[in-house]
Amino acid sequence: MIDRTARWLVAPLLLCASGLGPLAAAAATAETPASVAAGLAHTALTDDWGYRFLQSLTTEIGPRLAGTEAEVRAAEWAEAKLEAAGMEVHLEKFPMTAWERGIETAAIVKPAPQRLVLTTLGGSVATPPAGIEGEAVVFRTYGALLAAAPGSLAGKIAVVTEHMVRTESGAGYGAANPIRRAGPAEAARRGAVAYLHRSLGTDNHRLPHTGALDYVEGVARIPAAALANPDADQLERLAALGPVTVHVTLTPSENPSAQSITVVGEIKGREKPDEIVLIGAHLDSWDLGTGAIDDGAGDAIVSEVGKLIAALPRHPRRTVRVVLFGAEELDFSGPAYAKAHIEEASRIVAAGETDFGARKVYAVQLPLGAAESSFGQTVGQILPSLNALLNHEPARRGGSDIEGLRLAGVPMLSLSQNGMDYFDIHHSADDTFDKVDPAELAQDAAVWAAITYLTAETEVDFRAVAKAAPQ
Amino acid sequence: MIDRTARWLVAPLLLCASGLGPLAAAAATAETPASVAAGLAHTALTDDWGYRFLQSLTTEIGPRLAGTEAEVRAAEWAEAKLEAAGMEVHLEKFPMTAWERGIETAAIVKPAPQRLVLTTLGGSVATPPAGIEGEAVVFRTYGALLAAAPGSLAGKIAVVTEHMVRTESGAGYGAANPIRRAGPAEAARRGAVAYLHRSLGTDNHRLPHTGALDYVEGVARIPAAALANPDADQLERLAALGPVTVHVTLTPSENPSAQSITVVGEIKGREKPDEIVLIGAHLDSWDLGTGAIDDGAGDAIVSEVGKLIAALPRHPRRTVRVVLFGAEELDFSGPAYAKAHIEEASRIVAAGETDFGARKVYAVQLPLGAAESSFGQTVGQILPSLNALLNHEPARRGGSDIEGLRLAGVPMLSLSQNGMDYFDIHHSADDTFDKVDPAELAQDAAVWAAITYLTAETEVDFRAVAKAAPQ
Repeated sequence: MIDRTARWLVAPLLLCASGLGPLAAAAATAETPASVAAGLAHTALTDDWGYRFLQSLTTEIGPRLAGTEAEVRAAEWAEAKLEAAGMEVHLEKFPMTAWERGIETAAIVKPAPQRLVLTTLGGSVATPPAGIEGEAVVFRTYGALLAAAPGSLAGKIAVVTEHMVRTESGAGYGAANPIRRAGPAEAARRGAVAYLHRSLGTDNHRLPHTGALDYVEGVARIPAAALANPDADQLERLAALGPVTVHVTLTPSENPSAQSITVVGEIKGREKPDEIVLIGAHLDSWDLGTGAIDDGAGDAIVSEVGKLIAALPRHPRRTVRVVLFGAEELDFSGPAYAKAHIEEASRIVAAGETDFGARKVYAVQLPLGAAESSFGQTVGQILPSLNALLNHEPARRGGSDIEGLRLAGVPMLSLSQNGMDYFDIHHSADDTFDKVDPAELAQDAAVWAAITYLTAETEVDFRAVAKAAPQ
Repeated sequence: MIDRTARWLVAPLLLCASGLGPLAAAAATAETPASVAAGLAHTALTDDWGYRFLQSLTTEIGPRLAGTEAEVRAAEWAEAKLEAAGMEVHLEKFPMTAWERGIETAAIVKPAPQRLVLTTLGGSVATPPAGIEGEAVVFRTYGALLAAAPGSLAGKIAVVTEHMVRTESGAGYGAANPIRRAGPAEAARRGAVAYLHRSLGTDNHRLPHTGALDYVEGVARIPAAALANPDADQLERLAALGPVTVHVTLTPSENPSAQSITVVGEIKGREKPDEIVLIGAHLDSWDLGTGAIDDGAGDAIVSEVGKLIAALPRHPRRTVRVVLFGAEELDFSGPAYAKAHIEEASRIVAAGETDFGARKVYAVQLPLGAAESSFGQTVGQILPSLNALLNHEPARRGGSDIEGLRLAGVPMLSLSQNGMDYFDIHHSADDTFDKVDPAELAQDAAVWAAITYLTAETEVDFRAVAKAAPQ
């Protein structure tokens, strides 16, 4: 494992602090926003608070599916952690439809009896208790399914085996997302009685990747599940040899009158407490793993930022709000938060979300026009010592938790993490604590701490600079 | 993926064949054992017969647990393959105790309810249908379990979380093996009602590794299972915080009057048909994966060797016997084969087994004294062009299928493959076809073909050179 104190990352900052760098030269003489930000980053790099936070969450709570008793335990745990970290904490409850997994088993019945490893998609309806049996019709691309005629899959089990592409940015996930989201309804339109697809995952383990689907009003809701990558390969190979019969049993259930919980910690601003810089991550997780990279790491990062800023002798001008959202995985968090907070949206000066694992931040994007402001110049000075760059492309998206705020006009902060192996693990049973590198997690917290502090300290009005910027 | 034609490996041999190398210089003029061996290796490197054999076995048969209907299908499949490859084929049936897995579920009940991923050890007895619940007592080393006093685990579930070490040779597996083999009886001696251990695996996936256990006469047979590595971590962390209650349900069953099948293909020797060079692998597999690296790859290698030698215009002096053993994973193959063939053991001039995956062969060990013989000199000439070396340490062991023959005095051949990642996959659901690199598998077949041919062609008497060698 990697040295937890992340010496290679700390070194440049220590040089700064010793007066050799331009930022720290200032720090040694008078406190500036840049010197405070560098100090926060230094602390994040040299403590292991975030890593221990994540260890505790993933071990003592473990999986925390939205709307379940485990999510309640997670919220109570988080409330205590944020309070102990010096924030003013409250919980916000909201209604949602909960979903639980039940049994998920499948097998090839003919020609070569063998087990298939799959996992039910979030929101899927159940098969009958004895399962569904039918001929598998394998489409090697999603486009081939879409090209199939209405009715052509009557009584069949549709299977899409298109691969997801590995990229640093995670763009492969976006491109493949309709296979999981829209595939079940598209298969149903063509008469299929069940839908299977190759997991949206870049690994080759017998560990399928779950995720939510989108049924369509007026189209039959058919049971849907994701196959592990090797199992999708196996179905492809067998289907190339002749007819394949598959048996699938999925017994998920829904509770339409459940409740989820968002945990909020604040550090009141010293001059403009009504102006809010919001940073968030989601506290709920899928049930298969323990939600370490999705999104316990994000919870650890924003919570550590809150802890570090709360501990400053002089709080920043604006209020910093740390939000640990409930029910993101089942698509409730963003709309619910925006609905509850629409009145104050104009006072949220910027919002950012971390929900892309625990690898290092390599780039920061600011609201439109901000990179060219004095604020952007300071950010640009801080980032090199943290091994990250300022991307002058403005942040046009935040993430699903803050998408409702974006639509309400809230300026976005966007930090890019290396996602090269994120989708090896994402939404699978493999999302566990051992996958997280403490040094990389510390770097994430360091960059987020610096950016959040500077955003809360600056007097730049992001909405105003956006209006003035060339669109 | 790697180019299936394995050009980098073929190149040196092609140079030989074009007359630039010393071996092929001979080949171009007169046929010698070395030139025939080089030709066989060349063919193995440039066809994909073994890779397609493995694809067919793992896809069209899939898992093939000994004593089950799937093993029967595998034997019939193999019989047809070896016949089509030009060998004289017969089946040998033998009695054995079959074992089937049933349900295997576990959870932490207190303090943090969550699922545990585990798999039942082969041969384990069942828990009651409703499972066993008890306090987990975690030992971070196997030695710590052995140090526990008799009776000290009364009513408890013993858990050993010692890690297995990754090595090229696989030595880590041998060192850790007692944890799985002997652990259940050692825990029972101390009063435990169930036994869990960290999988003997070097990966960090939620995929546990099964394997056989050894109960001890006179000691209670308690249910036993292997935890996935992340789940062993989780139990370690929670146990460090306080008492942990675990619930385990395992429902395996035994059939003491089952039968397994060994498939044998022969190429009769042209001069000494009664002298036998035996090369083998096991056809049965664990049920979790499809037995690609364990041991479908071995089956593919030795079957391709048989095919290549059967196709020679002039068979080697001695008979080559390709043996695809049944019931290796449940420990029956070696004793059963030796018992059935003890009368002819003196006529088996050498035996080798390939059961260590599909990575490249890097070293060859010959029977005691043979490396220094004319035979050894020829082997030493062939190997460099195949990227392998002659290890002058004699082969003192073969493998579990041929251990009974070794005890009966049969000289051993031993080829070392790179096992650095073998135990990431071994005995887990992840043992599937996609894990095999066709170029490496082709190199394995090439080395085995050369060595097998030379062993069958030489007039060296290995028992005689062993007697003459310094021990």
